[in-house]
Amino acid sequence: MITSTSDPQPADFADVRATNLAVVLRFVREHAPCSRADIAASTGLNKATVSSLVADLIDRRLVRETGLTENRVGRPATMLVLDGSPYAAIGVEINVDYVTAVAVDLSGERLLSWRRSFQGPDVTVPQAMAVVAGLVRRVTTRMAREERQVLGLTVAVPGLVGTDGVVRVAPNLGWRDADLCGDLAKALRDPGFPVQVDNDANLAALAEHRFGPWAGTADLVYLTGGIGVGAGVILDGRLRRGGRGYGGEIGHIQLDPLGAECRCGRRGCLEAVAGIGAVLEHAALSPAEVEVALEETVRLARTGDAHTLAVLAGVGRDLGRGVSMIANLLNPEVVVLGGYYVPLAPWLLPEIEAEARGRVIAPDAGGCRVVASALGYGAAALGGAARVLDLVDSGRLPRIS
Amino acid sequence: MITSTSDPQPADFADVRATNLAVVLRFVREHAPCSRADIAASTGLNKATVSSLVADLIDRRLVRETGLTENRVGRPATMLVLDGSPYAAIGVEINVDYVTAVAVDLSGERLLSWRRSFQGPDVTVPQAMAVVAGLVRRVTTRMAREERQVLGLTVAVPGLVGTDGVVRVAPNLGWRDADLCGDLAKALRDPGFPVQVDNDANLAALAEHRFGPWAGTADLVYLTGGIGVGAGVILDGRLRRGGRGYGGEIGHIQLDPLGAECRCGRRGCLEAVAGIGAVLEHAALSPAEVEVALEETVRLARTGDAHTLAVLAGVGRDLGRGVSMIANLLNPEVVVLGGYYVPLAPWLLPEIEAEARGRVIAPDAGGCRVVASALGYGAAALGGAARVLDLVDSGRLPRIS
Repeated sequence: MITSTSDPQPADFADVRATNLAVVLRFVREHAPCSRADIAASTGLNKATVSSLVADLIDRRLVRETGLTENRVGRPATMLVLDGSPYAAIGVEINVDYVTAVAVDLSGERLLSWRRSFQGPDVTVPQAMAVVAGLVRRVTTRMAREERQVLGLTVAVPGLVGTDGVVRVAPNLGWRDADLCGDLAKALRDPGFPVQVDNDANLAALAEHRFGPWAGTADLVYLTGGIGVGAGVILDGRLRRGGRGYGGEIGHIQLDPLGAECRCGRRGCLEAVAGIGAVLEHAALSPAEVEVALEETVRLARTGDAHTLAVLAGVGRDLGRGVSMIANLLNPEVVVLGGYYVPLAPWLLPEIEAEARGRVIAPDAGGCRVVASALGYGAAALGGAARVLDLVDSGRLPRIS
Repeated sequence: MITSTSDPQPADFADVRATNLAVVLRFVREHAPCSRADIAASTGLNKATVSSLVADLIDRRLVRETGLTENRVGRPATMLVLDGSPYAAIGVEINVDYVTAVAVDLSGERLLSWRRSFQGPDVTVPQAMAVVAGLVRRVTTRMAREERQVLGLTVAVPGLVGTDGVVRVAPNLGWRDADLCGDLAKALRDPGFPVQVDNDANLAALAEHRFGPWAGTADLVYLTGGIGVGAGVILDGRLRRGGRGYGGEIGHIQLDPLGAECRCGRRGCLEAVAGIGAVLEHAALSPAEVEVALEETVRLARTGDAHTLAVLAGVGRDLGRGVSMIANLLNPEVVVLGGYYVPLAPWLLPEIEAEARGRVIAPDAGGCRVVASALGYGAAALGGAARVLDLVDSGRLPRIS
């Protein structure tokens, strides 16, 4: 697992070369075409080190040479640009009734996007891993045919995932203490690339941060609108997981001690009063039934049906209370609503914004915008691929093939 | 203002030298005694660069030479250790009825700790700044007598402080949109060191993170227990302020729509149901009256007074709900209770822990410990000094005197 630090350098200097490779790769991404001398001048690394780092990046086909400079005093220099076309990063999302897979190249270009149905609650973890492994093998076969090396795979799971990658609890799948990484690596028979597991909200937040309309926003919170509600918290440009990786569990924060009963046994949890169950006035629908009911809700809202509008307004207000907590405590620039909230956003957003204006202590709700995701239901899988690219950015480079 | 980033290097390489100075200073702090060659070998910086950086640090009296190495193959090398004794960092806290000042040296050793009374709500911002400037001048005079150069000053304020250092709102002082930095720099007549202003909870969190028993804990949240309740949020080793710097405003998160009325006009805010006003069953006491009433509460609790114990248990449960929100959303390793909560901790902590066990979704409350601050009422001022030292750590070195 990558542990993040915001110090000027890793505290123990253990992986200085990896850091420096990442620094050079970043510099080329942002300043290409550029020369080795440009890199040395800007980073403070000496020329011999830069040459060695660049040679390494060229060997790995992350960077390539592209002719000589023309407008330069002194000797012409060989210019460098980003390569990376021979690579792919894979993201998979396991949900209650489907599994999706996406693959992107180093620049984030979508290479494929597949979905297959799945009976999450009815299968054991090893059975589920066999299904995922089958899908991943099809993806890797396709990538091999395109002569792309797979940089890694991240699997999104709707549940608590520890910093060790173990799924502690995935309530809607009925999983507990499941070592998905281990089981999946076994099912894939040593795939030759890193396999990671992460919470779906965390990965969706990474997808927004790398690929969404708000990409690069330093302080961004993503709220999943699935059967459950979870948060992915990005502050100062990085996902913040907390000490054991269990951050973002906003779904069972209590909004009202007298509120509707929640599946967790408590009352008035955000998920119970502002989740999709509250919108559809039915907490126990299957995901397939949710999609049908959701379409009907949108249709009714469009026709101005009073009851539907009142329900959406109520859910919007409760969601606004949840957003206000986030805005008061974390002051993000943007809160992105995902999943089932997206089609409902036209009716939810005005209520959320009104609540935030009234409840956030900072003027103008602390500048916090609330928006609907533009990445659709595939955000978590896409975030899985984003996390693989993050690994490369932080210095974990592909092996030379 | 320092903006933090967790990328391997600053994105634009603008301040590479400052970063490298900080890297070398950190290395010496952690590995002293060490040689220039050690630094070069471990950081990847070339020897000429390291020599130039070390010369700079020696000129600034942050590092000094300390004889030759003995147990080394090859030529003996001059060893380096941290210096920094000729410096002082100053922190000031403005509170409703007092102003405190502390000064520490580069290693955090306390040099002085002063307090003077103050009538916060009765004075204008310029009048307050004159008081603060008077206190700061006494401190700087003392430091000058000890031949110490002042590295900087941070002023803690109980209110919303933007990333621009402007105090947007300080309700208990009656201040709005006050440019304390500007006013104070004017009152100090160009002091020759950087002056910063920050929220008191943020600075208290920095103090805990640098000087407290939980120093260095990557994920730590501090809760002020003053007339109001605020949070300072440290995640992955850095204070997280949010987009505009308004994070940590937990005091007016609503716990219960039917709860006690709050000074802000809403109902059931954390501050109203679990602040010191709820403990003392009187929201409008002056700070001096609070201290007297608090002593009486502690005395009654010690004697087992049933009513007092019931009130403390209720406040503990409500505070536990607030802590559970933090634990669910951010999964910190520790939540530190400060201010007036400290003497009440023996009665509050068991209730808080019970609530957290019941309300936090992650097993074992996500591993979150709740503890009383060991830094006392001076935490915010001490954090002001810590923030000055953070500036040095991040590459803003003292000018050569």
